Amino acid sequence: MGASRDPAKVGHQVLRNLKASGFTGKLFPVNPRVREILGLIAYPSLEEISDRVDLAVVIVPAIAVPRVIDQCDGAGVSAAVIMSGGFREIGAEGEKIEQDLRDTLKRTKVRVIGPNCTGVDNPHIGLCMWLPLRKHGYISVVTQSGTVASAIKCWAENEGLGIAKCVTLGNRIDIDETDLLRYLGDDPLTRVIALYLESVSDGTRFLKAASDVSKRKPILALKGGRTQPGARAAVTHTRSIVGDDQIFQAAMKQCGVIRVQTTEELYDSSKALSYLTLPSGPNVLIVTSSGGSAILAADVCSDMGLELPPLTRSTEKTLRQKLPGYCIFSNPFDLTTTTADQFRVVVEENIHDPMIHAFLLIFGDPLLGASEVVDSFRPSTEKPIIVAYLGGGDVEDKERAIMHSRGIPVFPSPERAAQALGVLLVRSEYLREED
Amino acid sequence: MGASRDPAKVGHQVLRNLKASGFTGKLFPVNPRVREILGLIAYPSLEEISDRVDLAVVIVPAIAVPRVIDQCDGAGVSAAVIMSGGFREIGAEGEKIEQDLRDTLKRTKVRVIGPNCTGVDNPHIGLCMWLPLRKHGYISVVTQSGTVASAIKCWAENEGLGIAKCVTLGNRIDIDETDLLRYLGDDPLTRVIALYLESVSDGTRFLKAASDVSKRKPILALKGGRTQPGARAAVTHTRSIVGDDQIFQAAMKQCGVIRVQTTEELYDSSKALSYLTLPSGPNVLIVTSSGGSAILAADVCSDMGLELPPLTRSTEKTLRQKLPGYCIFSNPFDLTTTTADQFRVVVEENIHDPMIHAFLLIFGDPLLGASEVVDSFRPSTEKPIIVAYLGGGDVEDKERAIMHSRGIPVFPSPERAAQALGVLLVRSEYLREED
Repeated sequence: MGASRDPAKVGHQVLRNLKASGFTGKLFPVNPRVREILGLIAYPSLEEISDRVDLAVVIVPAIAVPRVIDQCDGAGVSAAVIMSGGFREIGAEGEKIEQDLRDTLKRTKVRVIGPNCTGVDNPHIGLCMWLPLRKHGYISVVTQSGTVASAIKCWAENEGLGIAKCVTLGNRIDIDETDLLRYLGDDPLTRVIALYLESVSDGTRFLKAASDVSKRKPILALKGGRTQPGARAAVTHTRSIVGDDQIFQAAMKQCGVIRVQTTEELYDSSKALSYLTLPSGPNVLIVTSSGGSAILAADVCSDMGLELPPLTRSTEKTLRQKLPGYCIFSNPFDLTTTTADQFRVVVEENIHDPMIHAFLLIFGDPLLGASEVVDSFRPSTEKPIIVAYLGGGDVEDKERAIMHSRGIPVFPSPERAAQALGVLLVRSEYLREED
Repeated sequence: MGASRDPAKVGHQVLRNLKASGFTGKLFPVNPRVREILGLIAYPSLEEISDRVDLAVVIVPAIAVPRVIDQCDGAGVSAAVIMSGGFREIGAEGEKIEQDLRDTLKRTKVRVIGPNCTGVDNPHIGLCMWLPLRKHGYISVVTQSGTVASAIKCWAENEGLGIAKCVTLGNRIDIDETDLLRYLGDDPLTRVIALYLESVSDGTRFLKAASDVSKRKPILALKGGRTQPGARAAVTHTRSIVGDDQIFQAAMKQCGVIRVQTTEELYDSSKALSYLTLPSGPNVLIVTSSGGSAILAADVCSDMGLELPPLTRSTEKTLRQKLPGYCIFSNPFDLTTTTADQFRVVVEENIHDPMIHAFLLIFGDPLLGASEVVDSFRPSTEKPIIVAYLGGGDVEDKERAIMHSRGIPVFPSPERAAQALGVLLVRSEYLREED
């Protein structure tokens, strides 16, 4: 609704993105003034479409939106994503239109996402509105910021991992984060739910839903407005009255939601939780060819409550027989100069050690075959093997692409890998307490 | 010295990297057993080379290194980078060879970097040993970890910004971080010195040199081993006795060295300090099309001591005439949906406001022309304009590449941009105090 032939208009871009994402269903551009848009027959109105329509994407001017929703209802379209802006976010005039829209919703059966949002994405069926996405994965995003969503989508797309579903809430006049938590909690393609919120629309409902869902699926929350200046900005952005940050923190902890501090941490933690198993305890063995990187990782491990137990004497003895004398037979285990196979030897000797709950492999410098090594342990272990790769130039790019194509997440620095591993520990400890 | 025809050997890779980096001088592979390596005439020994040799790159087995240094001295080669490993890092046997090497150095005029290092880089003349680098820039790196150096080199190379010089210290038997601070302090191509250290070899000398150099050039330090587990790992990595972290922190502050916490922060801060002017005060105007990103940036600004003053009434009045009513006329200034030119209007109206010391522009979503806007202010202002770009897909990639080609650093998230801006403030406040 509001499809356009003008490439500068959102009503054009959304249609183009749906096509570029390979949407598997049928698309019906609605525009009374043209016959064809982007090679598709344009319909003068919803009523002219003879197929059953599952979802209306609404991009008409705000003032026309309530009428369009009525049309949807008349045509039996029960779901709409309203991308149009011009509602309460622009002040008194828009507030009035938004009230009209609320009234319309009360007398219709249409359920609405938005208005003033940047759409929804389901790349598994090629339904991507704001950016064309070709990859699909297991991270689902629910957000009060279109850009935070787009950032995560772009990072996941560029890494070849993709996302599962994304919903930008906009003014959340109807469907809110709590509805989506419940929905995504039951969605088999969603392994982790990543939230960006400035406020919650209904605290009590949210806490109940989050408590339920987080028992079976991890929920991450990035909160905008944790400081005074940020909170002031949140009021103007989404009219969010941001409460005391410590209260938010305590509430999230209570309902099992893991709080992160930055956009990148939201993505990294989502990656780790989607693709890695959980450690059954805090003990990590760091294996590396880069002593410096391992130290930086050890520092962050310590911050996150992870521990680096020493090698057992028998393991150390075996490894001293199998590996060059210049290795540092400790934890971190530093192979110094190395081949990928030497990484394999170290992991192999420790993989059944009950005192090691997770492995952090830090590949530094160009090292071919890193992907093979990591891959070879996956069928035989429940322990997470988390990978950082840095300083490897073209070889790193190639190995990272291979690992991502196999669902092995790779982190770009030792600190980010250790941080993500810390989040896995938080999640596993939460589940153990709940048990 | 120790050049090889075997692609698996470092003695081959270094030669290949020097060629691939476009080294502007002459290369003389030395290997007594072959006539040609990588299309270059190989020399049986240093004495056979008739040209004057400026630098020896030593990659022979450790046991042969003292003799090679004697040969360098005999041939009038006064500088050597010893990449060979097998010295004190491997234990007692290597310790003995290292002592031999120290004795050799005492009786020769050769100055040495290493041993057990991953070489040096000067991409301005194509002298790059560990990775081939084609870009050159203004960040210089001095490091106890080859991989931390490589990571920064790869990031700078991939962004097209490049580095100025890089030295990996290895066992720092002769030249240490203090020598390099003084050298880089006087190097006209070095705008910022980025250090990764686990310890300093001589605290008193270091503090003196850092105090001198930081008066004219910013120095950044990432310290490995700030926690107990990290410190333990540092002992095995570089035999570094890591002192109390708070003492290190206080010492760095006293001599004007800016401490950072992660590898990425070291790179981000280096980028900002190399390419941006310093703010004359803490007041930032955030201009954005992404309200959520601006809130996240505002939170980090607040952490970093940056302030977000309100718009003046006259500026707000002017902007209300020039821009759509749905903008949020505040700080952050949120254009919501926007064109690049609307960013220009907001910056233009505030550029001469003495209460605004810096601009943080956050481009979210695909926005063409972002680079033009930022570029247009550079000739006319001393105020830093720091850019974050995220969620923009292909358009973002293109605009980022243009900005980097023009020396405008772009940060991948609002938090990282705000953090980097905070570092600029720290630097400017230090210089003001020193004044």
